[in-house]
Amino acid sequence: MASRKLVLGTILYPSGHHVAAWRHPSTSASANVDVDHYIRSARAAEEAGFHIAFISDRLGIPQSRAEALQRVDEWSHGFEALTLAAAVATATTRIGVIATASTSFNEPYNLARQLASLDLISKGRIGWNIVTSSLEQERENFNPIPSFDHADRYERASEFVETVLALWESWNPDSILRNKQSGVFLGPDALKSVDHEGRFFRSKGPLNVIPSSQDHPILAQAGSSDAGKALAARTADVVFTAQPDLAAGRAFYQDLKQRRGAEGRSSDHLLVLPGIFPVVGRTRAEAEDRYATLQDLIQPEVALSLLETYLGDVDLSGVDIDGPLPDLPQSNSIRSRQGLLTGLARQEGLSVIGLARRIAGARGHWQVIGTAEDIAGQMEDWFTAGAADGFMVLPPTFPDGQDDFIRDVVPLLTHRGLFEPDVTARTLRQRLNLPRPLRMNTKTERKSA
Amino acid sequence: MASRKLVLGTILYPSGHHVAAWRHPSTSASANVDVDHYIRSARAAEEAGFHIAFISDRLGIPQSRAEALQRVDEWSHGFEALTLAAAVATATTRIGVIATASTSFNEPYNLARQLASLDLISKGRIGWNIVTSSLEQERENFNPIPSFDHADRYERASEFVETVLALWESWNPDSILRNKQSGVFLGPDALKSVDHEGRFFRSKGPLNVIPSSQDHPILAQAGSSDAGKALAARTADVVFTAQPDLAAGRAFYQDLKQRRGAEGRSSDHLLVLPGIFPVVGRTRAEAEDRYATLQDLIQPEVALSLLETYLGDVDLSGVDIDGPLPDLPQSNSIRSRQGLLTGLARQEGLSVIGLARRIAGARGHWQVIGTAEDIAGQMEDWFTAGAADGFMVLPPTFPDGQDDFIRDVVPLLTHRGLFEPDVTARTLRQRLNLPRPLRMNTKTERKSA
Ligand SMILES: Cc1cc2nc3c(=O)[nH]c(=O)nc-3n(C[C@H](O)[C@H](O)[C@H](O)COP(=O)(O)O)c2cc1C
Ligand SMILES: Cc1cc2nc3c(=O)[nH]c(=O)nc-3n(C[C@H](O)[C@H](O)[C@H](O)COP(=O)(O)O)c2cc1C
Repeated sequence: MASRKLVLGTILYPSGHHVAAWRHPSTSASANVDVDHYIRSARAAEEAGFHIAFISDRLGIPQSRAEALQRVDEWSHGFEALTLAAAVATATTRIGVIATASTSFNEPYNLARQLASLDLISKGRIGWNIVTSSLEQERENFNPIPSFDHADRYERASEFVETVLALWESWNPDSILRNKQSGVFLGPDALKSVDHEGRFFRSKGPLNVIPSSQDHPILAQAGSSDAGKALAARTADVVFTAQPDLAAGRAFYQDLKQRRGAEGRSSDHLLVLPGIFPVVGRTRAEAEDRYATLQDLIQPEVALSLLETYLGDVDLSGVDIDGPLPDLPQSNSIRSRQGLLTGLARQEGLSVIGLARRIAGARGHWQVIGTAEDIAGQMEDWFTAGAADGFMVLPPTFPDGQDDFIRDVVPLLTHRGLFEPDVTARTLRQRLNLPRPLRMNTKTERKSA
Repeated sequence: MASRKLVLGTILYPSGHHVAAWRHPSTSASANVDVDHYIRSARAAEEAGFHIAFISDRLGIPQSRAEALQRVDEWSHGFEALTLAAAVATATTRIGVIATASTSFNEPYNLARQLASLDLISKGRIGWNIVTSSLEQERENFNPIPSFDHADRYERASEFVETVLALWESWNPDSILRNKQSGVFLGPDALKSVDHEGRFFRSKGPLNVIPSSQDHPILAQAGSSDAGKALAARTADVVFTAQPDLAAGRAFYQDLKQRRGAEGRSSDHLLVLPGIFPVVGRTRAEAEDRYATLQDLIQPEVALSLLETYLGDVDLSGVDIDGPLPDLPQSNSIRSRQGLLTGLARQEGLSVIGLARRIAGARGHWQVIGTAEDIAGQMEDWFTAGAADGFMVLPPTFPDGQDDFIRDVVPLLTHRGLFEPDVTARTLRQRLNLPRPLRMNTKTERKSA
């Protein structure tokens, strides 16, 4: 496909994606409570032609160690994702805004409403990152749910998404007449009940929010377990993923595209976007220096605690941190990430603290430290090798890390013919070249899955 | 108190608060999906010095008759309240934004997060209108809750509010240190668990959103049943109410202030704000004309259906609509409003359709049709007679109905010394002259209640 172009997203975050970014002289240590910080980041990305500003979220403080918690600025980045998405969407006009919300601790009717409302607020630029909330610290903040087992969480997620889609489709936009003369606002078939009664949810419908100009928000997914990939293949438009290198990225990409094909749907309409943690320098030495400056700011308590969380809430307190990673109990919570990290430790021969520091920066995402040419070249490699349809950028620091990428790397991507800001698209669905959901067809597709 | 001033709020809504506003030539029939409409209304109110922009909400389509549903533009005004509040807050700088959210179909941790996040987005200008969601059509959109009985709903609401306050108080803002040099972001007592385990909810805490500059959102309530007033007296900063006339308004006001006193707390810190539905004309005849024009646009299906809903989901389909209101079963859902409406019908000798049309406009709120002098004079009467600390304005149409009030009535209120825009206040709490919550004290107060 000659005209295939890179999709670019930025992941909004407090002082930066490097865990010690808040200590860096160039960042603001109060970014995590400063909505203007998020708005500035999103506007800069919009200005550069990015497709997506992404907002992650968590329903608790994911921290095993108090000493570590006291040394970071990121508890669910300080804001709740849907309200922050509304603020960012209000302050921008073109960029898509994808916000995270959990299927384990919400009701479909509430989330369907909030997302549809966001889609109106943004004039068709919203996406929903579907997560199942894996942490014990999240579960404890809510009334018990029947089961928090990995399989049950994904079964619940699947029914949740189906219910939300049905609610979004409970309106027929063509029958909204608004006829002042006759007094008829809605035609007789403008809305219909949903009458959902499943294992996890009940919802009669219809929704009381009208569809936006992109029909409904696009769906994103970041689960990388088997169940996560199955859900993504069945329902997602966009997949975010953390892949440490090209080989892993390609395997993941091919797996997902094949699963989508097996659903009888076009794999072009499932965009796989790995994360990239870019450290840009005018020379490689300058880039390495910049990285070293950040790494030097990492406090060991923080790195170790992060590693514990990323390994699935294991307890490393008795472990020799200068020795190799011990065998771990298979975690119910973040299965796939555990596999990636143990693989990385083995591959690079890292000690526990070495692995902790190694991932504390990029958190298992693909890390590239080099000149803008280096970075653009490697992005091209991933794109052409079938490992990525685009990338989610995790700037090490805000605003400089993002500004560097925009100023130095984006023009090279454009120059290489890989990237071209779409100035005609009005909705996120158009911007991502995704088809409009065919109401009846998508229903059939989902049912057959 | 010589310096006591009126509090003014506006209730954001689609084409207007008159049920037929969407058919009026001056309004937009697509206001209900147009976020810019809400932003314009809020900005105009802000510009005029209003304290509050209020956003109502419902979790379903409150409609018994399909014929009626097809003839109105207001299903929960088209947006979900918290996401719309974020958009409005982002597009304004001084006005407080009070948004509605239900205690019956949410979890405290989610709502506490969204409201705290809104409070950061707005820089301390958010309030929460606590509702218990009375309609059967709302209940059916969710998984069953243990009981939807009026008393149980309020017991749940009470525990919900207590849990949310505890979560908001799980942070100590003075211990957020942000010390780049030492690497210590939080002092050791910055946050604490909540460990709530009650009849309805479980939540361990702490919250993962930091308090705003007003500590936490202010609390509003609009329940007017005995249980509703008890909850308001115990927890609310602001009470919204629909009162048809001065006598009813005064009785309600005095009742609430006395209940607040009985809680051992200052009744000055519970602001009672009745709704006012003003139809302004240069002469009384012009005002009557304007009202008649709107009334003529009401379709009987709509008026009757609204009456059914307001009476608590009764079925009037067998009833002679030209005869008097029959005896009604006491409704579990909207007890207090039913009492007001049957009283109004008896008092004004209205037939069923007469009552339906009479309330279709102002929906049981205090309706004033006259010159700006008439309206300002009557507002002063309520204010000085102990029936109101201020008013929530329900413009019959947007934007004209609100613009008329701002252009013609507000200057007279200022001239009479009743109203004075506060240009120094930064937070909604300051703007309403409410004290900062004393962490330990409010806890004790709540416990003793
Ligand atoms: C780029 C990326 C972003 C993610 N964002 C979130 C998030 O915001 N909230 C969350 O709870 N989980 C998030 N996750 C975790 C995934 O949703 C998922 O739980 C995790 O990848 C483990 O996969 P599994 O659930 O299929 O086992 C993210 C993962 C990736 C790779
Ligand atoms: C001015 C005003 C605004 C209200 N807004 C809402 C609302 O947005 N959503 C809602 O569910 N109920 C709303 N209500 C209804 C009240 O919350 C309450 O349920 C009703 O007044 C009946 O009182 P009770 O619940 O104490 O019986 C409103 C009431 C008034 C007077």
